[in-house]
Amino acid sequence: MAVTSQQLSSSLATLIETLRERLGAAQVLTGDDVASRQVDWLSRASCRAAAIVRPGTPEQVAEVLALCHQARQPIVTHGGLTGLVHGAEAAPDELALSLERLAAIEEIDPVAGTITVQAGAPLQKVQEAAREVGMQFALDLGARGSCSIGGNIATNAGGNRVIRYGMMRQQVLGLEAVLADGQVISAMSPMLKNNAGYDLKQLFIGSEGTLGVVTRAVLKLQPALGDTRTALVACPDFTSMTSLLTHLRDSLGGSLAAFEAMWQNHFALITEQERHQPPLDADAPYYALVESLANDEDHHRQQFEAALEASVEQGWVVDAVIAQSESQRDKLWAIRDDIEGLVEALSPIMAFDVSLPIGEMQDYVAEVQARLEARWPQMRLAVFGHLGDGNLHLSVGVGSDDPDTRHEVEGCLYEPLARVKGSISAEHGIGLEKRDWLSISRSPEELALMATLKRTLDPHGLLNRHKVVPWTAPQT
Amino acid sequence: MAVTSQQLSSSLATLIETLRERLGAAQVLTGDDVASRQVDWLSRASCRAAAIVRPGTPEQVAEVLALCHQARQPIVTHGGLTGLVHGAEAAPDELALSLERLAAIEEIDPVAGTITVQAGAPLQKVQEAAREVGMQFALDLGARGSCSIGGNIATNAGGNRVIRYGMMRQQVLGLEAVLADGQVISAMSPMLKNNAGYDLKQLFIGSEGTLGVVTRAVLKLQPALGDTRTALVACPDFTSMTSLLTHLRDSLGGSLAAFEAMWQNHFALITEQERHQPPLDADAPYYALVESLANDEDHHRQQFEAALEASVEQGWVVDAVIAQSESQRDKLWAIRDDIEGLVEALSPIMAFDVSLPIGEMQDYVAEVQARLEARWPQMRLAVFGHLGDGNLHLSVGVGSDDPDTRHEVEGCLYEPLARVKGSISAEHGIGLEKRDWLSISRSPEELALMATLKRTLDPHGLLNRHKVVPWTAPQT
Repeated sequence: MAVTSQQLSSSLATLIETLRERLGAAQVLTGDDVASRQVDWLSRASCRAAAIVRPGTPEQVAEVLALCHQARQPIVTHGGLTGLVHGAEAAPDELALSLERLAAIEEIDPVAGTITVQAGAPLQKVQEAAREVGMQFALDLGARGSCSIGGNIATNAGGNRVIRYGMMRQQVLGLEAVLADGQVISAMSPMLKNNAGYDLKQLFIGSEGTLGVVTRAVLKLQPALGDTRTALVACPDFTSMTSLLTHLRDSLGGSLAAFEAMWQNHFALITEQERHQPPLDADAPYYALVESLANDEDHHRQQFEAALEASVEQGWVVDAVIAQSESQRDKLWAIRDDIEGLVEALSPIMAFDVSLPIGEMQDYVAEVQARLEARWPQMRLAVFGHLGDGNLHLSVGVGSDDPDTRHEVEGCLYEPLARVKGSISAEHGIGLEKRDWLSISRSPEELALMATLKRTLDPHGLLNRHKVVPWTAPQT
Repeated sequence: MAVTSQQLSSSLATLIETLRERLGAAQVLTGDDVASRQVDWLSRASCRAAAIVRPGTPEQVAEVLALCHQARQPIVTHGGLTGLVHGAEAAPDELALSLERLAAIEEIDPVAGTITVQAGAPLQKVQEAAREVGMQFALDLGARGSCSIGGNIATNAGGNRVIRYGMMRQQVLGLEAVLADGQVISAMSPMLKNNAGYDLKQLFIGSEGTLGVVTRAVLKLQPALGDTRTALVACPDFTSMTSLLTHLRDSLGGSLAAFEAMWQNHFALITEQERHQPPLDADAPYYALVESLANDEDHHRQQFEAALEASVEQGWVVDAVIAQSESQRDKLWAIRDDIEGLVEALSPIMAFDVSLPIGEMQDYVAEVQARLEARWPQMRLAVFGHLGDGNLHLSVGVGSDDPDTRHEVEGCLYEPLARVKGSISAEHGIGLEKRDWLSISRSPEELALMATLKRTLDPHGLLNRHKVVPWTAPQT
């Protein structure tokens, strides 16, 4: 028997009442308190959920999920709301489960190199806690002030230092997650090595909240490295840029921490804006912002400069500027990080995040450009990315972003990935936005296994329904 | 209806005949060709499987598994047979599926830093292939010449360099696995970053062949580092040893690649044997073999020596020898690696592999020793381990290793782990040997979720039945 919207409304109202009783009225937001929250950073769309529920402890998360399970009530988990693929969107008959009150740092152990945190803790708070004990937390991305550790885990966040430290998955030693029925899976192992049975935490990392709600985690800390060397270089062609990457990776002995490539279209588009003072002329086809982290200032400076000099001699680099101060470093990064400048220049912008083998990148970008130009001769394209990770971010402006246009643009970007075994999502995830393109990157057998896992762990489709894996109501 | 052993025999014989037809008679071994294979390195137990099946391609693996699925025939997958937890044992009514003919290195890409290999390739072959293109494959362990990449993946192997490069899981970019029904899950992504849906490969890494058979993988390579610095040091107490670890981790700027701790009982037991020339007196309570990898000889030597000198000044190190040549380095490692010496001295030996927070180690070892001594006053215990990974290897000799004694010794070692959230297996896995102790390290909810995954992916229990997760025949 299908549930009618009338029945749902009434049972949902009862559930909301119960949640108010359990958590306190102030922790269940409705009306304007819901609508005033933006769930999408780019579109600024408002939250449409029936209510926002804010448990204050992991135990309360379990209680909320058990109640929702009883009522067969779908929920959408909210972290810092900085995602880019509509992962936080909720329908009017869904509840949003916000982990904002679960923000404690529970423990930090500098000898073991671990930190134990609740899922709602902002990334920056974790980074600062690590610094206070003389260590560092390796994940870093632009949204650090707002994004939450739980969201970083659920989306397997990437960011600026993947080439050196890996993605969020590599930083997680243990975690605790609540299943759709309210059962708590506590896999809070603090050890680097633990082969006692299946590594269940992997199920919850990168599955975007569709298999469980992450409530706590034990994260790995890294030794702090006091000396940062940063340079912006211009390369005469793509092969030179990849030679530079290989050379720095090998000659810096593992210290290379960022290799942010910018195609001319990106570099020119940003540096022509008034707020930047272009540190290099914009006439080279490729630019790279490179950064190395070590802890021995004199030797590291010599090593970094020698590696760049050798690259100039080889002809891989035709122009370069090395940051001589923290403020110069900030200015170089401001070019790479100026997402608002991109949004402004390409409005309405469409932002893509793909990965593919480095050897295929040049042809891929040329093909995308040709496809887009053939359809929209006035289109603008800006390409940058974490070259060492095989990750490109493409920003496109074609003058419109209505759904049909968007779908056509997506086709231009995603279809050429199939041939090169590329991924339609390097780091942003799938959410709602990319779900229907997943077959570009995943085989029918993989998609079937994903659906099997979803059905097994969340048979009623209560957790982030419709995200990542399609949902159809079971036949009754 | 239950299958009787008579029926099974006859259907198994038919299946073996079919397999001979499909793969060629030479690829299905029976009789002495089976019994002459050792499936257990320590006990030298023989293979008892009804036959050993040797497919030559990933497609043939899928074909074999589809035929076994049709016949509801359980199989045990064999890699290099170097495991230590009875993971390769097969019952007389089971088939062994050996991947020894799937040993090709399919592709190597030094720019992307990837290598594509078949599961049966020995680890050492992969290491050598990486060296030939000027890179390195990071996983390294004593069994390198025999163990296979597929086995390394299935068991999430650890080894000597985890502190620097992580476990096998961190080296795997993509993989292909065959499910129990013969379906192929091809997740051969070559990219460092890929968030396009659930990361299915994680299911097959470390699950010891119970959820699928790994056939191929794309592995990550690391920059080769030309300069290795190695030292053996003596520490006056446990706190000094952990201070040394923290100091080296921080001051070597990420170059520390091994920190192998040896308790006096281990160091003395090995160095008192004639074939070693003790490089240090055996009167200190703790020893550590430390190694650092970098690519800048002069600076690295200075850095390494300065770090050790500072440790002597701090009193963390009371005696030290730095290897001055490759042959001196080999001699230092020979002490740490002398498993045969251990086996000889403690025969019949029982070998354990646990992990726990570093801060708990000293008390843990003392408690284990007290428990063992209370029961077997003449017992001998030798403790060494990868301190930076929280991983201890304890070797015990009590004069007998019959099943009851073994169980009692296991209790002495495993029970104290529960309190400190330790793991009964840091790197060896669970197999048959540790399965019934899993509840020490995993909660009932975790064990239930593991069983759910097993039931979902392998409903008939055909893959490494009884290993890791208990198997009971479904009610009919």
